[in-house]
Amino acid sequence: MWLIGFSVLTVMLESIPSINAKYSTLIHGLEWFFTIAFTLEYALRIWLVRRPSRYIFSFYGVVDLLSCLPTYLALLDPTHSSFAVIRVLRLLRMFRVMKMVHHIRGANTLMRGLRSAAPKITVFFTSVLLLSIVAGTIIYFIESGVEDTKFTSIPISVYYAIVSITTVGYGDITAVTALGKIFTTLLILTGYAIIAVPTGIVTSEMINAHKQDETTDACPSCGVHGHLIDAKFCRRCGEKLD
Amino acid sequence: MWLIGFSVLTVMLESIPSINAKYSTLIHGLEWFFTIAFTLEYALRIWLVRRPSRYIFSFYGVVDLLSCLPTYLALLDPTHSSFAVIRVLRLLRMFRVMKMVHHIRGANTLMRGLRSAAPKITVFFTSVLLLSIVAGTIIYFIESGVEDTKFTSIPISVYYAIVSITTVGYGDITAVTALGKIFTTLLILTGYAIIAVPTGIVTSEMINAHKQDETTDACPSCGVHGHLIDAKFCRRCGEKLD
Amino acid sequence: MWLIGFSVLTVMLESIPSINAKYSTLIHGLEWFFTIAFTLEYALRIWLVRRPSRYIFSFYGVVDLLSCLPTYLALLDPTHSSFAVIRVLRLLRMFRVMKMVHHIRGANTLMRGLRSAAPKITVFFTSVLLLSIVAGTIIYFIESGVEDTKFTSIPISVYYAIVSITTVGYGDITAVTALGKIFTTLLILTGYAIIAVPTGIVTSEMINAHKQDETTDACPSCGVHGHLIDAKFCRRCGEKLD
Amino acid sequence: MWLIGFSVLTVMLESIPSINAKYSTLIHGLEWFFTIAFTLEYALRIWLVRRPSRYIFSFYGVVDLLSCLPTYLALLDPTHSSFAVIRVLRLLRMFRVMKMVHHIRGANTLMRGLRSAAPKITVFFTSVLLLSIVAGTIIYFIESGVEDTKFTSIPISVYYAIVSITTVGYGDITAVTALGKIFTTLLILTGYAIIAVPTGIVTSEMINAHKQDETTDACPSCGVHGHLIDAKFCRRCGEKLD
Repeated sequence: MWLIGFSVLTVMLESIPSINAKYSTLIHGLEWFFTIAFTLEYALRIWLVRRPSRYIFSFYGVVDLLSCLPTYLALLDPTHSSFAVIRVLRLLRMFRVMKMVHHIRGANTLMRGLRSAAPKITVFFTSVLLLSIVAGTIIYFIESGVEDTKFTSIPISVYYAIVSITTVGYGDITAVTALGKIFTTLLILTGYAIIAVPTGIVTSEMINAHKQDETTDACPSCGVHGHLIDAKFCRRCGEKLD
Repeated sequence: MWLIGFSVLTVMLESIPSINAKYSTLIHGLEWFFTIAFTLEYALRIWLVRRPSRYIFSFYGVVDLLSCLPTYLALLDPTHSSFAVIRVLRLLRMFRVMKMVHHIRGANTLMRGLRSAAPKITVFFTSVLLLSIVAGTIIYFIESGVEDTKFTSIPISVYYAIVSITTVGYGDITAVTALGKIFTTLLILTGYAIIAVPTGIVTSEMINAHKQDETTDACPSCGVHGHLIDAKFCRRCGEKLD
Repeated sequence: MWLIGFSVLTVMLESIPSINAKYSTLIHGLEWFFTIAFTLEYALRIWLVRRPSRYIFSFYGVVDLLSCLPTYLALLDPTHSSFAVIRVLRLLRMFRVMKMVHHIRGANTLMRGLRSAAPKITVFFTSVLLLSIVAGTIIYFIESGVEDTKFTSIPISVYYAIVSITTVGYGDITAVTALGKIFTTLLILTGYAIIAVPTGIVTSEMINAHKQDETTDACPSCGVHGHLIDAKFCRRCGEKLD
Repeated sequence: MWLIGFSVLTVMLESIPSINAKYSTLIHGLEWFFTIAFTLEYALRIWLVRRPSRYIFSFYGVVDLLSCLPTYLALLDPTHSSFAVIRVLRLLRMFRVMKMVHHIRGANTLMRGLRSAAPKITVFFTSVLLLSIVAGTIIYFIESGVEDTKFTSIPISVYYAIVSITTVGYGDITAVTALGKIFTTLLILTGYAIIAVPTGIVTSEMINAHKQDETTDACPSCGVHGHLIDAKFCRRCGEKLD
């Protein structure tokens, strides 16, 4: 549905001050058009779905509701007194983008792939986090003595360690002392080695997933499944496979 | 053809102000030399090819035409009145570089590999984009309250989110608030996990492509395996394969 | 143990000046609470473990001791005269985070995977380091002639080379001259090629580890191989496998 | 040889102005010590090797010569008149580091792996370069109209494109216009997809290399395969393998 894409684009453009000032009326109009369209869709779904209560409290039901509600709520407060609240509501409309997940074919396959590697990736992430905390503490100790240092606290140093390990490297905080630079170098090389681990995890999961595609039905006599594609006899009981 | 390489180099050097001012005449001369050479090539191709119309409207035909046309068009307007137009034309000559794709052996193999993984990669990209839009909105909400923030609109925040997820990290825009930094950290770690996915996709495609070149069967009489897929007789003992 | 997580969080927050000034008493109290808890744990372990001396000098024994000792030592010097020493002691408490390694399930599996690829990765790192030293020297030679250059010495240039090869790219030091930029480009592309090597090493190690889950035997009567580990009959001819 | 490591360290430290000023005499002394050691090694090798001329003109022969020559040449010109020449000579000593390649076990295996994937990687690099040239031209066209732009010429824009595609992202040059940012985003995502390709190439090469370590033959009498390369008898039935 291109409608979702356009509505998200409208909210994005509205957030740019110069564009909002110029095309204020047009954006306002479009906003109402999208809101009404989504409200209709939401109403239709509730009406048509067999079990409305189950839809309403499902993930997509909540997303659909959040897609249209904010505009109405903004209407309730025409004096724009509670600016902060409205800003949040406006941004909530951005979550319409999650409705698009519906429409991407193959996204489920990808999600399944990620989910099968999830426990390994979680372990990996916790390790990276622990490593970053230790590394951040060390670099904080090294760098915090310098005047006008940007390593003002441990959390910021941990943030620096994570940005370095993941090879992002914004450059807003950088080591100034010689020792700090040497330590950063070691840290980066560690991160460089570590990047191979999650890649390897996902790749080997994917190759295994491929192999499972070669398996066919279960044996009609003993029920064992997971035969290779060219299998003609059950590998457990020797019965012929159809 | 080194000619293409040199002509592209000439256009690149011409764009550097200091060099253009110094060697203006030489560059101009070279430019005309290349243009005439490409024109000759283009004329010869049209003359020699059996179906000229098909060549002219093919991708490479258009590229070849764009390689020589801009210089002539610049001649039509000797008073340099329409500066903007000429600049575009000059840059169009850079597309000569695409003529080099012809001459790279093996590029086709690479393209085929990429194309076979294309649908999966498209799904993946759309997911990254959706994730960036959601993340950009959240970080915009977190950071936009600060004075002199660089997160002036949602599109810029989405740009920041993409730059962070992909581990590019220019550093022209960075989170200032503590919450923004924590969220960025989470975002980067997600991006770090996600980098493994396209790598895994392409790698498993490549390994499968390799595998399809061999059968998984051994010869029933001599036990040799690893026969090619179209093999009908065992390459060791000559026995017929089933 | 969430206790460890909270205690690490407390030390981190204490390092932020603004928070430390505000909640000084609360943080102090929490600090003593955690220290006493860890001391009790340490005492209990020594009391309960059969061979206390072996525990005390083990890795985790030292970590446990360092978790509680610093706070007591800080008490010995109430006048805060030796500020530098106390700062180190305070940071030592951060190593409590290493106690969490105990509690991550699967971390051992990950470590074993990394360790099996360790000799290859070591070779790889030494190569990257040598390459960086050579590249750093060249870029130092190219860039050091410029006024106000940031490439003030070879070690800094090597740091720049490593930051570039690993695609971190802080941007605190960047090439200014044209030649320096061309060389940096070459260096980055090399680094880009090199990132594939450790990834490939770990991935192939992981895939090989997976493969050991399949039998390496072929059927004795028809020669088909690649049977699954639980196979008892050949999937082609139905013959019993031994 | 730790000697090489220390000598390289000495040259590196000498390049730091503050250290050079302080320990000038010590560094000078060490320099002469290393030079004499390397000269002795070089002389011994020529004396002991059967075919000296072949050694002298080999890669390592030239490296060994360059390791000791610069210090002597610097002696010839005690007035330090030709400063530029001496600086080059001094840096040449850094190439001593290449002597260490001798001593890294397993480096040859790594090099062989890289070399087998070399033609594919070359094709890949040329493609990245062509893509960068096209992308650099487009971004130059988009950004060069802005006042005080950093995209002053096409080569610099190509440099920016390469830095973006490879996810290095120094941040010394960044897009300012909205269109430039959108285009950069597309470029980065392309680069993100492309990083998977060389990784995939090397990984599949490595997995294939692993496979080649096993014979491709099955035992002619019992059909067991996967014999090690040095196997002379079937490990299952004892039949002689051919």
